[in-house]
Amino acid sequence: MTGQINPPNRLLMGPGPINADPRVLRAMSAALVGQYDPVMTGYMAETQELYRQVFRTRNDATLLVDGTSRAGIEAALVSLLEPGDRVLVPIFGRFGYLLQEVAERCGAEVHSIEREWGTVFPVSELEAAIRRVKPKLVAVVHGDTSTTLAQPLDELGAICREHGALLYTDATASLGGNEFAADDWGVDVVTAGLQKCLAGPSGTAPISLSPAAVEVVESRKSIEAGIAAEGAPRSPRRIRSNYFDLGMILDYWGPSRLNHHTEATSALYGARECARILVEEGLDVAVARHELHGRALAAGLQGLGLTLFGDQEHRMNNVVGVFIPEGLDGEAVRRTLLEDFAIEIGTSFGPLHGRIWRVGTMGYNARKDTVLTTLAALEAVLHRAGAKVAPGGGVTAAYEVYA
Amino acid sequence: MTGQINPPNRLLMGPGPINADPRVLRAMSAALVGQYDPVMTGYMAETQELYRQVFRTRNDATLLVDGTSRAGIEAALVSLLEPGDRVLVPIFGRFGYLLQEVAERCGAEVHSIEREWGTVFPVSELEAAIRRVKPKLVAVVHGDTSTTLAQPLDELGAICREHGALLYTDATASLGGNEFAADDWGVDVVTAGLQKCLAGPSGTAPISLSPAAVEVVESRKSIEAGIAAEGAPRSPRRIRSNYFDLGMILDYWGPSRLNHHTEATSALYGARECARILVEEGLDVAVARHELHGRALAAGLQGLGLTLFGDQEHRMNNVVGVFIPEGLDGEAVRRTLLEDFAIEIGTSFGPLHGRIWRVGTMGYNARKDTVLTTLAALEAVLHRAGAKVAPGGGVTAAYEVYA
Repeated sequence: MTGQINPPNRLLMGPGPINADPRVLRAMSAALVGQYDPVMTGYMAETQELYRQVFRTRNDATLLVDGTSRAGIEAALVSLLEPGDRVLVPIFGRFGYLLQEVAERCGAEVHSIEREWGTVFPVSELEAAIRRVKPKLVAVVHGDTSTTLAQPLDELGAICREHGALLYTDATASLGGNEFAADDWGVDVVTAGLQKCLAGPSGTAPISLSPAAVEVVESRKSIEAGIAAEGAPRSPRRIRSNYFDLGMILDYWGPSRLNHHTEATSALYGARECARILVEEGLDVAVARHELHGRALAAGLQGLGLTLFGDQEHRMNNVVGVFIPEGLDGEAVRRTLLEDFAIEIGTSFGPLHGRIWRVGTMGYNARKDTVLTTLAALEAVLHRAGAKVAPGGGVTAAYEVYA
Repeated sequence: MTGQINPPNRLLMGPGPINADPRVLRAMSAALVGQYDPVMTGYMAETQELYRQVFRTRNDATLLVDGTSRAGIEAALVSLLEPGDRVLVPIFGRFGYLLQEVAERCGAEVHSIEREWGTVFPVSELEAAIRRVKPKLVAVVHGDTSTTLAQPLDELGAICREHGALLYTDATASLGGNEFAADDWGVDVVTAGLQKCLAGPSGTAPISLSPAAVEVVESRKSIEAGIAAEGAPRSPRRIRSNYFDLGMILDYWGPSRLNHHTEATSALYGARECARILVEEGLDVAVARHELHGRALAAGLQGLGLTLFGDQEHRMNNVVGVFIPEGLDGEAVRRTLLEDFAIEIGTSFGPLHGRIWRVGTMGYNARKDTVLTTLAALEAVLHRAGAKVAPGGGVTAAYEVYA
């Protein structure tokens, strides 16, 4: 007979998922209530209000999509984009390609611009592309974990508005550990996930839509036959997905409580607790914590004699890319770290595969003990693998940052 | 400050979600491991094997879709159906309309046939429709909770095969509490959810695909640019959704472990435990348990003087529809049951709204104590509401079934 779930202890210091905050897992183990129980709809309303704070928005349309972070991405794009719509996708890493690909599958006319991995776009380049493409939507990743970098967005909303475009961003990798301000930056739609700085498990995608974005979604509204009242809307421009139809999902979360899916109750309990922990700590305090431990980690990796990857000016606080030393088997090092020290660090994708590791310090794991332990263990493993490392150099450099 | 998750005690005797088995919630609170940790991929493989047993199939392609049950439905339909494909949807309740609607949004040419709610299709009617429509796919709900009925499927697979059609069914409402045999019945694709007889929370959709269904999916394979190797497949018949692209999801669960989403680890822990509990009890034993308690519940409701809804020959074991007595406010009764007895029973949709309640006894709640308690409480509430009920009639009738 298959045994019970009994995972070994792991310190997850990769680009995410990371160890969930134990408070989140405890919240998820609470008993279920019915989907229209006033207790449940109360939890839903509280969750919406908490994520408004996390996204720094007053958007009424702030809620959860039941699925992993890319469920949020697809819900945003398929609900906003109709076949033939022009969309501009600036790509500076793997998840830019994901936005491109999802938009293509929506039938949109996709215009992509690309930067070398390890760099971000100067805002002037984005503005020039918007001027040229005249998109309905600009879809850009905020922090792309594949390269560890974050695209500055603070000026982009105003530029989009000037050119009549909506701005969508995915903040899965960055939210909670890096500054993010949906309303101040003029972001129309933002999506996220829990498995990075929010310290929860993958499986829930918080999303927020500006009134302008809601207007687009509502103009395509169509209610399914099994529950539609006489004369219910049925747009000929119906959204191509039922599951990701944000119009119907908004009706489920809104005052009409019109049934769509059956909300994933345990996941909602977890998502609510993730946001509650972050709001309780204070968003600015949490960002400063990620900045401190990210800086200590980066200094420590350099202190070991390793070279950091990418434009450090635009690196996310919560993940550091570092070149694998010449001649070393990067996967063997990761394996030894996992098997002998129970510490996981990340591999990488595409052009960076085999060239860099990605080491994260985020959410519940953005702590001094996790950073120091990881540096000490990495030094030991590199030393045994025959790499030249500065003895004690990693931990010493990190301590200097903490001093 | 928003307080911690602290739901009140509830006995959920509606059509689902129902109370999760405490073992499932405990499994979900286990610590996370990395998504490519051998422990995690081991749990994934065990989960696949457990669901092969639950679905009674040898399909290699048996896995989880990260989302609620309708995520499984949409993944099946969007992966199988191309724009213009002919699909036959026999509708005998709300969830038939859902299949119709999802298939329409996939761009398929949808041919629906309908039965009055409360009845199911004679197999001859289905065969005649298949002969007429010549569909690529027949998509039919197994048990439709909206009407409490289950469509017999045991002969349908052979008929579909004879006419060159694939057979898809959604067994969310029935699986685990009613006989189901994917391979013996010739079902090509089956989807489910956890929140009914599987005794887990909503949020995960187990799915199984026959080799013939996998062939269709693989013929449309396209790997996203951010992770594709040189020369990776890129079908011009690409599936319209990235999130629900079963070809990519199969690669993630299969030996290549090609990254798609980040698996919802806690949800997987829960799904694995749901199946483990069921397999441990024995599938036949679990079905017999649902049959017994469903029969006791139905007898009890009749013993109270109430009239059952729908063709009882084809009622699912796990949910009973019952007419609201003339002149009674059905919602007020439900409210009193919830507020004063902490028991939830279900309302209904569409043509049955305001006419019937739906009372479930499924999964963890398919027990003698839950059935007797619900009948006693319902009697008390009906009595206080001024309805004519046979005193002790419900509990007595149920006891007779148990005798």
